[in-house]
Amino acid sequence: MTDTGERTLKAGIVGGTGYAGVELLRLLTAHPRVQLHCITSRGEEGRAVAELFPNLRGLLDLEFTAPSTQRLAECDLVFFATPHNVAMHAVPELLEAGTRVVDISADFRLRDPDLWARWYDEAHACPELLAQSIYGLPELNRQRIADARLVGCAGCYPTAIQLGFMPLLEQGLVDEQHLIASAASGASGAGKSAKVPMLLAEAGESFKAYGAGGHRHLPEIEQGLSDIAGGPAHATFVPHLIPMVRGIHASLYARLRDTGDSLDALQQLYERRFADEPFVDVMPPGTHPETRWVRGANHCRLAVHRPGDGDTLVVLSVIDNLVKGASGQAVQIMNIMFGLAETQGLEQPGLMP
Amino acid sequence: MTDTGERTLKAGIVGGTGYAGVELLRLLTAHPRVQLHCITSRGEEGRAVAELFPNLRGLLDLEFTAPSTQRLAECDLVFFATPHNVAMHAVPELLEAGTRVVDISADFRLRDPDLWARWYDEAHACPELLAQSIYGLPELNRQRIADARLVGCAGCYPTAIQLGFMPLLEQGLVDEQHLIASAASGASGAGKSAKVPMLLAEAGESFKAYGAGGHRHLPEIEQGLSDIAGGPAHATFVPHLIPMVRGIHASLYARLRDTGDSLDALQQLYERRFADEPFVDVMPPGTHPETRWVRGANHCRLAVHRPGDGDTLVVLSVIDNLVKGASGQAVQIMNIMFGLAETQGLEQPGLMP
Amino acid sequence: MTDTGERTLKAGIVGGTGYAGVELLRLLTAHPRVQLHCITSRGEEGRAVAELFPNLRGLLDLEFTAPSTQRLAECDLVFFATPHNVAMHAVPELLEAGTRVVDISADFRLRDPDLWARWYDEAHACPELLAQSIYGLPELNRQRIADARLVGCAGCYPTAIQLGFMPLLEQGLVDEQHLIASAASGASGAGKSAKVPMLLAEAGESFKAYGAGGHRHLPEIEQGLSDIAGGPAHATFVPHLIPMVRGIHASLYARLRDTGDSLDALQQLYERRFADEPFVDVMPPGTHPETRWVRGANHCRLAVHRPGDGDTLVVLSVIDNLVKGASGQAVQIMNIMFGLAETQGLEQPGLMP
Amino acid sequence: MTDTGERTLKAGIVGGTGYAGVELLRLLTAHPRVQLHCITSRGEEGRAVAELFPNLRGLLDLEFTAPSTQRLAECDLVFFATPHNVAMHAVPELLEAGTRVVDISADFRLRDPDLWARWYDEAHACPELLAQSIYGLPELNRQRIADARLVGCAGCYPTAIQLGFMPLLEQGLVDEQHLIASAASGASGAGKSAKVPMLLAEAGESFKAYGAGGHRHLPEIEQGLSDIAGGPAHATFVPHLIPMVRGIHASLYARLRDTGDSLDALQQLYERRFADEPFVDVMPPGTHPETRWVRGANHCRLAVHRPGDGDTLVVLSVIDNLVKGASGQAVQIMNIMFGLAETQGLEQPGLMP
Repeated sequence: MTDTGERTLKAGIVGGTGYAGVELLRLLTAHPRVQLHCITSRGEEGRAVAELFPNLRGLLDLEFTAPSTQRLAECDLVFFATPHNVAMHAVPELLEAGTRVVDISADFRLRDPDLWARWYDEAHACPELLAQSIYGLPELNRQRIADARLVGCAGCYPTAIQLGFMPLLEQGLVDEQHLIASAASGASGAGKSAKVPMLLAEAGESFKAYGAGGHRHLPEIEQGLSDIAGGPAHATFVPHLIPMVRGIHASLYARLRDTGDSLDALQQLYERRFADEPFVDVMPPGTHPETRWVRGANHCRLAVHRPGDGDTLVVLSVIDNLVKGASGQAVQIMNIMFGLAETQGLEQPGLMP
Repeated sequence: MTDTGERTLKAGIVGGTGYAGVELLRLLTAHPRVQLHCITSRGEEGRAVAELFPNLRGLLDLEFTAPSTQRLAECDLVFFATPHNVAMHAVPELLEAGTRVVDISADFRLRDPDLWARWYDEAHACPELLAQSIYGLPELNRQRIADARLVGCAGCYPTAIQLGFMPLLEQGLVDEQHLIASAASGASGAGKSAKVPMLLAEAGESFKAYGAGGHRHLPEIEQGLSDIAGGPAHATFVPHLIPMVRGIHASLYARLRDTGDSLDALQQLYERRFADEPFVDVMPPGTHPETRWVRGANHCRLAVHRPGDGDTLVVLSVIDNLVKGASGQAVQIMNIMFGLAETQGLEQPGLMP
Repeated sequence: MTDTGERTLKAGIVGGTGYAGVELLRLLTAHPRVQLHCITSRGEEGRAVAELFPNLRGLLDLEFTAPSTQRLAECDLVFFATPHNVAMHAVPELLEAGTRVVDISADFRLRDPDLWARWYDEAHACPELLAQSIYGLPELNRQRIADARLVGCAGCYPTAIQLGFMPLLEQGLVDEQHLIASAASGASGAGKSAKVPMLLAEAGESFKAYGAGGHRHLPEIEQGLSDIAGGPAHATFVPHLIPMVRGIHASLYARLRDTGDSLDALQQLYERRFADEPFVDVMPPGTHPETRWVRGANHCRLAVHRPGDGDTLVVLSVIDNLVKGASGQAVQIMNIMFGLAETQGLEQPGLMP
Repeated sequence: MTDTGERTLKAGIVGGTGYAGVELLRLLTAHPRVQLHCITSRGEEGRAVAELFPNLRGLLDLEFTAPSTQRLAECDLVFFATPHNVAMHAVPELLEAGTRVVDISADFRLRDPDLWARWYDEAHACPELLAQSIYGLPELNRQRIADARLVGCAGCYPTAIQLGFMPLLEQGLVDEQHLIASAASGASGAGKSAKVPMLLAEAGESFKAYGAGGHRHLPEIEQGLSDIAGGPAHATFVPHLIPMVRGIHASLYARLRDTGDSLDALQQLYERRFADEPFVDVMPPGTHPETRWVRGANHCRLAVHRPGDGDTLVVLSVIDNLVKGASGQAVQIMNIMFGLAETQGLEQPGLMP
């Protein structure tokens, strides 16, 4: 694609009525190179997108259309912003038509179809595609993403957790069999579907863990951590629900193999590792990243602590679950796939306060 | 100023450590024509701006400097994002030096120095400038703002309230002696200073009115409503504190002079009045605007209701108190003053959810 | 009923799975005179109440049972904590069996069956009972409540609004044709049913009005205000949704007939009017009541303001929507009906912060 | 003390203007045996307590008085609800006068004065009393509390964490050298003092860790865990700030020594251990306790998980930081010290929702 400075990248969105959808619309509307060709929704067919999402009034003149492979196949790229179990039924046909696909859902993240089946309680619809799907974490897979036809975007918790553990596991500095990820998310992570426990009157002014016995993000996390470590890694992952809308915070605990590694050296390791990463920001020593520092932004901000100079490291990692944890990551991946500047359309500062 | 497409407008900020300051930085950083020349803070001199505001890390390479008239005078435009009672001491010298000024504080909003003195408990420092200061509400004063040397930006509540009542008062359709503005703001409206009642543990999970007996925004509101009405107007204004960070919501009540005016006709009046306003959005009949629809955006979204076809109209008006209610408005005013496209740097969609 | 100091008042609850239900359980569990005989729920039959409401673990050993008129008829009193359109089908049989009824839902508040039908989109199931049902606002109807067989508890918004306007309307001091009630509620007011707009991710960190064109509480409010005024009264009522769980705040605006009435005199009027009311607290002049001041308590706290000594009065009124706005009021009514001390079981202080 | 059923226990409160103070007042006001003799505050001398805390209006007729040892010495028991560094200066004199003391602050929790000095940056004022002060965690020290003259109440985080680990450490089932406590608190935990980071506009709608490198609660936690384990125990403790008012949630991670211990056996261990504890509630397997389940209540609710049947256990523990984490615990301790029923005054259910 020649960089003509025009909106020449034709993009489609399947399932644009949820939170990943509206966030994708927010980002693509402001992206100088993307032309939104179509956005599909069975339930909202014919309705103006800006009617459902008033923040887009005046900025986006598009209607939801019924899903149509033909129309989607006219796109250079189709994003799936659907619940799991949708993309895997539609993707094969699109790929055949020559359209590239970025799936924000969980359908193409795991390489092992049996693992997928175990956690999602049904067989995968196109297990043969899992092998060619690229796991969409640019900091891990940038080059393979560039050439990919199909990318399964890294999930929200997995992104915050993998980036946080990455330098330690790459260098083999910690016990990769006993990683602990105590993480927490705002309520938008649960999606825009009506469930009693996600009511403001239930989830507001309270805090709880969920899925402590086993959560669907765990196999993705362990697959990614193992890839990074170059061998099997195991994590205890406990997600929590924060009484707020946006943001993920991961508190990561790992045991150093060699307590001779100083905090200074570890800080430098992190800084070097991410020096060229446009969206990973290693904070100065002693920092406690706040989720609001990345609200609306595609950044992951990290800090490394070593309490009491002991053998347990603490890494703190924050992202916006809807941006770097979903739609921003998808746009970053699109930029890589189509040879655009990786930060294009993703440079606006976060909203603070 | 020739539109060369370069960052040729040199801007300075006085008092950039508060919420209006960081919001101005967020907007100007992304503004294609503005070059930030300096930002002053006595308390934070020498500190990197992005250290105080981590959302700007990597996007802004600037330090706070001590206030210096000489350095500020090198700017084409200086913004004051200070508490009241600061700008009025520094502005005269800057104007003399040929620098234009947009004051986000309350120092240059009221034309009557006695009124200022009564509400702010001290004499105004440069009453002679009040006469030439232009009240910074573009929808009311666009042409005069274009030529102004000094603009006192409309306040947050006053903006939401004036825009809401504007068409009714311009047409003389309602009793302008008994307007009621029951409005509410998120906690960022109180600024970034440490006060017990603004603690999360005090203001969270609760709702209250304040200043019901008389609030400093009232004289500004009544001055503005009177200007719009073309004669004295009186309002009862009760602000409330919402347990959230950003956003203003105004519920406006006015009595129709002639109950023959249909809601349809009123809706059309609003739509016509604001048809050419890039930042005022009249919602379809029956809508209830939500503050999150304008989070981070410079829009005011309005809806008109007439309960039970009675003689009392209800107008609902929402803005982001830090954008259209402060720094976004200041940028819009800057655009007007310097002949830029009025929406430049202000086109990003709001953050929803 | 002889006051033996024992738990001799047998009470039943129909529909105990919602917020009014759990609040009633919280209050009755701690009430020294009430023995909970049964609590019904079709959906939760056989489940321990404390399993659904873990705050009651160890304090309440009771299971939900299927609704049974026979079992309910063994009670001295049955509370209905159901959505509207349930009580009206079950109450006639219970009354015939000699059981008294306190309905927290909307079925027995309006005296006019046509009005009910218009706002609830169906015919009332037992219009003949509306005439004998007593409107459950103790401050208005204490004596009639004492003798009642059937009481329709005043709703949440209507309670805050009627108490706030009461002294003014009783004395005929304000224009009762143009009352304005700008009120706001926490999300628990919408009940415990799964609806997208009530999700934390939708309603959190935002503020909006709803039902501005006409809300089901309006006819109840106008019926009550008219009863108080001794003739037709009209109000403009706009409810708002606060991003929090509990609490109602009403900002009431009324125009004085005679501006000679001083604020002092009005303050005294309020204090005298409510001097003997155990649950209405007139705050000192200049106060702005906060909803957290009544969290978990059965009090209504009021303050009277007269901005700029003008002709528009502002009354601020707060209650806990689940206590004085629902289940606390129901317990207060029960106390009155059975000759107990009116404050029994309702004396615990609110939870602040 | 003979149980006459009258309010014969004379209690005093030093420093009643903070959150532990108002919570103590809420609980003692409703306690049938306690007569509040005096409450001191230098800053609020002469002011009615209910003026500062409107939730107590009508329930408490008491004024703040200047601190007076003489007056305090008339009490059977004095509570200190002060910041650290106050009680240690006043307690010696009171003890000499024969008054017993329950200190809610941190002055008498650590036994080692050097440790205290290191974490609080000053020498302890009465190190000789540390040896006789009893650590106020009833589940650990009930008998010694009964006989104590001076009790240093367990802190909020330490209570949630010690109760959670207790059965495991008592039985030596886990590696006590590598315990991890990832915990989170509502904003009231930071006290009622004006600090910018605790403003609603800063701490609202965001989540962050703090003190990851070392927090003042750590030495107390490790002292307690070591006492329980019967030998040195080490923990990594990372506290987090939740955007809400009340509640503490601790997610505890420990490595099993013997993976042969089944989750069933561990569940039973917990249930047996706390079977007679009135305020520790072991939830059924699979439960995720929510902080709102204990809002306003003195309970700690626990759940045990063993993800993937691996060697890492997860214990979830919730308390209300102001009740079981401060003032409720103090009342429980008072009950034990004076031979009252341990649950007296602490039996009201939590406020949910």
